[in-house]
Amino acid sequence: MTQFTHFLDTCRSLVDGELERILPGNTIEPVSVHQAIRWSVFAGGKRFRPALVLAAGETFGAPLSHLLPTACALELIHTYSLIHDDLPSMDNDDLRRGMPTCHVKFGEATAILAGDALQALAFKTIANEEQLTPEVRIRLISLIGEAAATPRGMVAGQALDLGAEAQPVTAPQLEEIHRLKTGALIVAAAQSGAIIGDASEADLRHLSDYAAQLGLLFQITDDLLDVTASAEALGKTPGKDARSHKATYPGLLGLEVARQRAAQVHREASAALRNVSRSTKRLQELADFILQREA
Amino acid sequence: MTQFTHFLDTCRSLVDGELERILPGNTIEPVSVHQAIRWSVFAGGKRFRPALVLAAGETFGAPLSHLLPTACALELIHTYSLIHDDLPSMDNDDLRRGMPTCHVKFGEATAILAGDALQALAFKTIANEEQLTPEVRIRLISLIGEAAATPRGMVAGQALDLGAEAQPVTAPQLEEIHRLKTGALIVAAAQSGAIIGDASEADLRHLSDYAAQLGLLFQITDDLLDVTASAEALGKTPGKDARSHKATYPGLLGLEVARQRAAQVHREASAALRNVSRSTKRLQELADFILQREA
Repeated sequence: MTQFTHFLDTCRSLVDGELERILPGNTIEPVSVHQAIRWSVFAGGKRFRPALVLAAGETFGAPLSHLLPTACALELIHTYSLIHDDLPSMDNDDLRRGMPTCHVKFGEATAILAGDALQALAFKTIANEEQLTPEVRIRLISLIGEAAATPRGMVAGQALDLGAEAQPVTAPQLEEIHRLKTGALIVAAAQSGAIIGDASEADLRHLSDYAAQLGLLFQITDDLLDVTASAEALGKTPGKDARSHKATYPGLLGLEVARQRAAQVHREASAALRNVSRSTKRLQELADFILQREA
Repeated sequence: MTQFTHFLDTCRSLVDGELERILPGNTIEPVSVHQAIRWSVFAGGKRFRPALVLAAGETFGAPLSHLLPTACALELIHTYSLIHDDLPSMDNDDLRRGMPTCHVKFGEATAILAGDALQALAFKTIANEEQLTPEVRIRLISLIGEAAATPRGMVAGQALDLGAEAQPVTAPQLEEIHRLKTGALIVAAAQSGAIIGDASEADLRHLSDYAAQLGLLFQITDDLLDVTASAEALGKTPGKDARSHKATYPGLLGLEVARQRAAQVHREASAALRNVSRSTKRLQELADFILQREA
């Protein structure tokens, strides 16, 4: 195990412990919603966004305990978006990471409510985080609220993605969809860690540039894995994107050009990092890891 | 027109103006989601929760401009909950206030996304409200986050309500459902106004007691109107609750006992107000208005 995968494993276990503390127990009423929440939150997510909060925060010397609740809040928002995206009227996915999706297991109504509760819980978690000053908490909520909503956030990306299923999109349009659908929250994760670490405005800007490329890299490699990886490594049926006529980078650009684009985006992420005034070893490793990931 | 209905009309027009300012324009991408948001937000709501924020804030001397954004944030959360509650997998309502519901007009996926965006926008609106200190903003977000989620807020109430459709409920169970489903946000509205007005802890407690009764009164009179009012006054088909086997106060207690319960709840709301250290004329008028309302 490399030092970096050790960092990722440590993040996952710290975040899972904190999530356990934050989420209502699944014997507390309404039991159905709390079971659905825990089913989806503890479904084996990679905790990529929380790891980015921790890596960015560490870069600016923020103590881990100050970072964990916000890292978890971002994972709660990410999880709510997965639950809602999987619904029959949205992407209509029955499986995620090899397990039944929330609405398949608990019914549509409970899945919608679980997502709704998770979003409120995310903002409440940050509001209640007494280790951070009220000023910092307000900044985080404003930032994450913007990144989660419309017109420049996650929900806008999902809406554009749904609209794109009806008609062919170009590569720039696809990048715009991903910039909003997954990129906005990933940028917010990096910014959150940096804000908690009291980074300068200039560093925040460079870190945002890095994270925007990182989000794109994440999406391109996700698309590439859908084409090239085995079902076992992926935990879902590979080739699903093509069959569902979803626009993907390999589909639009071809496999080889998509790989070149991933390498280019990785270089741009690295270039942005070199402008940051602190040691960015961990953040560089994160970008390297995503470029080379196999699941 | 009485002085109090004049107050309500003024609130509605101030709140609608502020909502117009807060919401993204419906020509901004993603157009579908922004049209759906505006369709539901400007569908003729009574703005009862915002009026309560303004009345409670006024009671403690808060300036109107400090109250309006939070009043709107509560209306955004209320609207998101209506959009999601109307969905086919939830209450499956095609009409609201005589107009097609959001998913009927814009499709289920867009309706889900509109609700999701509204919730994020509500929290962001409070976070960005620079007239309030960061401390007050954090308190409001924490309070409203709690009131919107589980286990003691709106989503919990909706989950219990859905569960109750399968089996008969008792009057105390029905009150518990309403205490969460509509009461929690109404209590949060009263508390928000009082917090912005820097009310004492004792006054906050009395105001919460008042608002809890007010929420119950609102629900009982809503149920009574469903039985007794004409379709024209109501903007929806009367008697719908009974036909959909929804538990209601008149259904459980009979019309006469339900009316007595409304009067009793009104007396308890008034009693709680008498403990407040300020003049509570407006808040009393609000309770009187709800007891006597005809739509």
